[in-house]
Amino acid sequence: MTNLTPNPSFSLTIRFQVPNRPGMLASVTMAVSSLGGNMGQIDLIEQTRQLSLRDITIDAASTEHAETIVAAVKALPDIKVLNVYDRTFDLHRGGKITVESRIPLRGQQDLAMAYTPGVGRICTAIAEDPEQVHTLTIKQNTVAIVTDGSAVLGLGNLGPEAAMPVMEGKAMLFKEFGGLDAFPICLATQDTDAIVETVKNIAPVFGGINLEDIAAPRCFEIEARLQRELDIPVFHDDQHGTAIVTLAALINALKLVHKSMTDVRIVINGAGAAGVAIARLLRKAGAEHIVMCDSRGILSLDRADLTAQKQDFAVEKSGNLADAMKGSDVFLGVSAPGVVTPAMVRSMAKDPIVFAMANPIPEIQPELVKQDVAIMATGRSDYPNQINNVLAFPGVFRGALDCRASTFTITMYLEAAQAIASLIKPSDLSHEFIIPSVFDERVATAVSAAVQQAARQDGVARA
Amino acid sequence: MTNLTPNPSFSLTIRFQVPNRPGMLASVTMAVSSLGGNMGQIDLIEQTRQLSLRDITIDAASTEHAETIVAAVKALPDIKVLNVYDRTFDLHRGGKITVESRIPLRGQQDLAMAYTPGVGRICTAIAEDPEQVHTLTIKQNTVAIVTDGSAVLGLGNLGPEAAMPVMEGKAMLFKEFGGLDAFPICLATQDTDAIVETVKNIAPVFGGINLEDIAAPRCFEIEARLQRELDIPVFHDDQHGTAIVTLAALINALKLVHKSMTDVRIVINGAGAAGVAIARLLRKAGAEHIVMCDSRGILSLDRADLTAQKQDFAVEKSGNLADAMKGSDVFLGVSAPGVVTPAMVRSMAKDPIVFAMANPIPEIQPELVKQDVAIMATGRSDYPNQINNVLAFPGVFRGALDCRASTFTITMYLEAAQAIASLIKPSDLSHEFIIPSVFDERVATAVSAAVQQAARQDGVARA
Repeated sequence: MTNLTPNPSFSLTIRFQVPNRPGMLASVTMAVSSLGGNMGQIDLIEQTRQLSLRDITIDAASTEHAETIVAAVKALPDIKVLNVYDRTFDLHRGGKITVESRIPLRGQQDLAMAYTPGVGRICTAIAEDPEQVHTLTIKQNTVAIVTDGSAVLGLGNLGPEAAMPVMEGKAMLFKEFGGLDAFPICLATQDTDAIVETVKNIAPVFGGINLEDIAAPRCFEIEARLQRELDIPVFHDDQHGTAIVTLAALINALKLVHKSMTDVRIVINGAGAAGVAIARLLRKAGAEHIVMCDSRGILSLDRADLTAQKQDFAVEKSGNLADAMKGSDVFLGVSAPGVVTPAMVRSMAKDPIVFAMANPIPEIQPELVKQDVAIMATGRSDYPNQINNVLAFPGVFRGALDCRASTFTITMYLEAAQAIASLIKPSDLSHEFIIPSVFDERVATAVSAAVQQAARQDGVARA
Repeated sequence: MTNLTPNPSFSLTIRFQVPNRPGMLASVTMAVSSLGGNMGQIDLIEQTRQLSLRDITIDAASTEHAETIVAAVKALPDIKVLNVYDRTFDLHRGGKITVESRIPLRGQQDLAMAYTPGVGRICTAIAEDPEQVHTLTIKQNTVAIVTDGSAVLGLGNLGPEAAMPVMEGKAMLFKEFGGLDAFPICLATQDTDAIVETVKNIAPVFGGINLEDIAAPRCFEIEARLQRELDIPVFHDDQHGTAIVTLAALINALKLVHKSMTDVRIVINGAGAAGVAIARLLRKAGAEHIVMCDSRGILSLDRADLTAQKQDFAVEKSGNLADAMKGSDVFLGVSAPGVVTPAMVRSMAKDPIVFAMANPIPEIQPELVKQDVAIMATGRSDYPNQINNVLAFPGVFRGALDCRASTFTITMYLEAAQAIASLIKPSDLSHEFIIPSVFDERVATAVSAAVQQAARQDGVARA
């Protein structure tokens, strides 16, 4: 872990005081850089003839790394460390989202229109014509981000409270990239029936439901039942968001190595929500040779411990992950940190494609197999080729809500993936650029348009 | 109804074109004012040598009144009406609230702190120390506005979709007056058990629950069970918000007529959520002579049709509302439009106090009894002495969340009412000024402080 690149998630700001004489700042920056800390902004807060007060911002690679750096700075002669800010914690204090009025409330006039008595006219209009809820309320632009906290990032079953920072972050992404209003619904139950009932009960306010960080196999049933019983689209991002972006990246990666989707031998490690959804979507996209592994090895026909979802992908072959990877063209990891060794990568076919998407620590560190792969991607923003769901879900929901889709279809997902892949011009395509940046402003619009067209094709668009 | 004062809830803007010559605008304003329309802004949009294009904004008293005015303007010679905007409908288009990020997402650095991988550190911190949810998430400032749409304003059982405009408006008020982030939860169920379960399931995100427009007697059980089973405060605004503000206004009204709470004979018409809560709070405040009426008349001991809540207030006396009001000092209406006649008011004791709070149309129009009452109040913003819950709930929740109250107590309500009443200096008190304006910026702060102090006194404050 400490070999990872320093990154902003372990970013700290140290405020320190030193005598105002040459060499003092240099001693600090030298200490930080000799320990591998990545320095950002250095601010001069105050300077007198005697003293300088400065803030230095440093990215570390881990909490331990950050602590080592702080200790080294504190140990310098003549320095006084006044405060150490953890920037990630500071940014989370008070929460990350807020509910605001879209219109001003300056006086009685505004109040009488936005609230009583005027609002009564709007209520009556909706009661008389229920369709009006789509124009006169927030429903048209609002998404519920629903979790039970059972599979928070790669961290496991942390419960609904600990899941909140992820859901708030997701709401920020919905706004920033899709212009959508999303609100976290973190459930105090992990019972499938209770989750389904609760989401159905709160559905009137929302134009769509985004399921998030719900453990497999429960997530499959919850999504299927909600999709069936609600008239608004339901999307499990860990499944379909991941699958869409993985497919988009794979489409472009295959172009670079001149292999075809139907021919390549694909290993998917991790048979949870994401793994199963990726396998399903790749099949629809034409993949014919998929071997899936879970923590016990290949999903093999002779295994008696497979869920219904896993059975769908069971193969004749058996063995462990290393066996599966031998001679394969593509490795897709949605599993756990460090489960792939350099030797396993070197056992793959010529020009191997490795997507090590475990978050936050990939299945194998890119540095370790730099020379051995044709194309490498991870889920991280600090390496090239970030497979990030944010490329999919904002545009997917933007499209679904704008055409008032009643549901999602697999065509909508396939078209979304194609739209993302197509944004990279053939001339720009390279082994370090197979997928657009999450800050590429064309993405959500392209995905939204593709999703709407697919929805119309499939007859699920209502506007 | 058409005798009501024109008000902004029936506000329209007419865009019209007239020949550019003297007297044309005057003919329009004359037509509007002769029909009793109340003119606001008049904008000149465009003017050529031949033509003037103007927008005129007019408050009407009802939809019919607005239509009459439009028809009269259209009938004027040489005028061309290009468009009629209903300002209340226009303002509701797209909904009234929005979810925004509190912090910018400018690039990978921000993303890596607010979302993955940095957010994982925050999730882990909360999982290890659940108390941290109160500092590192939106919970500390967020309120659910929960309704089943069964008693929307005075309009009845309109269902969850038609209730949304009220809940969105409420969220605006929470923000504007209390600085709180509130989000509408409109439930697709009117079953008590299902409502309780659903609210418990979504509670982790919220620091408090505001129940709204849920019909009696169901609302009493829902509130009691949620209060018992959740560790965050639960408030049914139609009950306690109304009761707090009514008590505040009554405290000041009694000062003006030199009567005491213990002595006055009080009639409460309407034995739903608001009526029962008012009666309960007035009792706690010392009232000893309360007669309640529902649509069948006085809640009398000899009636066999009373719910448990109503039985609490049953009296020896029987009869109809007119019988109840005869000789009484105070009338508090939380019932239906027009149920009180001028004769009934004139039958009251000397210096009668009449709070006709039915919304949007009061139990009796103030104009009809101007000479007969000592003090008149309504729920409307277009008359003096508006009894508006917005004086209570923002400060009540601000206080409860700031001291992390586990529950609400009746002391908190009593102190909130006292705080509101106290904001009017004795020298300012008059029959047209017994309660602060909803735009008095001191209100929420005063209520919040009083609520926190009461919470500490009652041992329910946790911070």
